Amino acid sequence: VKTFVVVGLGLIGGSLAASIRERFPRATVIGVSRRGENLRVARRKRWIDEGTTRLPTPLRGAHLVLVATPVPMIPRFIRKLDDVAEPGTLVTDVGSTKAEIVRWVVRERLNRIQFVGSHPLAGSHLKGLGAARADLFDGASVFITPTSSANPRAVRTLSAFWKRLRTQVYLCSPELHDRIVAAISHLPHAVVSILMHSVSKTFLRYGAGGFLDTTRIAQSDPDLWAGIFLTNRANLIRSLSTFDRKLKALSDLLANGSEKGIRHFLALAQARRREAGKGRP
Amino acid sequence: VKTFVVVGLGLIGGSLAASIRERFPRATVIGVSRRGENLRVARRKRWIDEGTTRLPTPLRGAHLVLVATPVPMIPRFIRKLDDVAEPGTLVTDVGSTKAEIVRWVVRERLNRIQFVGSHPLAGSHLKGLGAARADLFDGASVFITPTSSANPRAVRTLSAFWKRLRTQVYLCSPELHDRIVAAISHLPHAVVSILMHSVSKTFLRYGAGGFLDTTRIAQSDPDLWAGIFLTNRANLIRSLSTFDRKLKALSDLLANGSEKGIRHFLALAQARRREAGKGRP
Repeated sequence: VKTFVVVGLGLIGGSLAASIRERFPRATVIGVSRRGENLRVARRKRWIDEGTTRLPTPLRGAHLVLVATPVPMIPRFIRKLDDVAEPGTLVTDVGSTKAEIVRWVVRERLNRIQFVGSHPLAGSHLKGLGAARADLFDGASVFITPTSSANPRAVRTLSAFWKRLRTQVYLCSPELHDRIVAAISHLPHAVVSILMHSVSKTFLRYGAGGFLDTTRIAQSDPDLWAGIFLTNRANLIRSLSTFDRKLKALSDLLANGSEKGIRHFLALAQARRREAGKGRP
Repeated sequence: VKTFVVVGLGLIGGSLAASIRERFPRATVIGVSRRGENLRVARRKRWIDEGTTRLPTPLRGAHLVLVATPVPMIPRFIRKLDDVAEPGTLVTDVGSTKAEIVRWVVRERLNRIQFVGSHPLAGSHLKGLGAARADLFDGASVFITPTSSANPRAVRTLSAFWKRLRTQVYLCSPELHDRIVAAISHLPHAVVSILMHSVSKTFLRYGAGGFLDTTRIAQSDPDLWAGIFLTNRANLIRSLSTFDRKLKALSDLLANGSEKGIRHFLALAQARRREAGKGRP
């Protein structure tokens, strides 16, 4: 029987516990959260079997430890896990940027644990355990970002775990991962936030369904996203500068009144969006 | 018993006929479409009582004529309506920009019809009669854009019509209307299209639910939108330039690594989005 430890019971940690309960029905799930209320709620929902406010010391028999705390707290928990876990224990995180944390892990020269980073592309503009759900990861993409020195068996185990949660697993380097998410996640978030700054307050109430859908992600937690932007800022600045060049291209077409050019610009955007949405809900 | 004439049976025209059928159950609805197939479908669904491929000549007893053709064809139909309709017939269009069409109407010195422009903020990235539905306008905002010389009674009748279709009606000048939609509709559409140009093709398939929601409107008809952009290009260029200034502000915060500044930027965007979404589905 497997034992999973989930550290942090917010939206992602809570959803992890719930999905593990569903997809590994015989496993033991241990939840770790500073907040007693989260432990009580997760236990009442039977998403965890045991809840503690601190990491168990020593930590024995864990098949996999998932660190789902806010990004700035991840290193502290990994450090601690390396002190208390059995040698060889597999540990992953679910943070939204990977190069920084993986560089930190390499520098730290961990002794006991096997660390391999993960990033499930799933979330919500809602936060906290109240928004957690067992199907949050259904069909989501998950990046696993091993370093060149990662243990192949640890990578296989982690990959099998995420697949069991019905996700689509991609392996890539932490650096490539961060470039990808800069483009498909951090840039859209930045752009939508900039959009909210560009619309005069008195016009906001006229925004229709399309406007609300487009800007939905601007409702996400500013503290969480400031952290994400900062740990990936070089890539995000580059993505914003690409965006700015394309913006100038469209502005020029408008200034020239080039109907053909504008049509072509919009048709290419349409084709790419269709491509991106292919086979998706 | 009232008679409504709907010219053009695409997404908007078809939905208009369907809503009129529902909200004015005893009225006669006449559909005008170049496409015989659309007339057959609309009749089969009982959204129209009669269908013709040309405007009835002479056009008698129409309570309201709604021109729901593509924007470039609106003037032609209004011109024709002024020739064939009874004196005093109320005519509106549903085009997405208003200053240009209203200026044209004023220049034309129409003799018989009373023209007042409308713009329901409702739509879909889908097009055509197949996407039409009776509830498309439920809860939508509708702008009515009378000129200073408009007949007050015509404005009241048009306003009562849209309210009966369960919309929220706003009256404003064609010029203010075009500034508002530049900000809340045309700018978001432009920004999302630019975003699709900024993401490398090979990264597209990793886009998650947030990305797909944000970029959904990029799937809209490029021809339709090129027309909208061109008829409102001065306002859209101004909106894009405001956006560009805000983009530079965020880029600078990122370059400086200002966590506090980034948080503040994102928190203001979040607050505005919440404000915009208040009391909406």
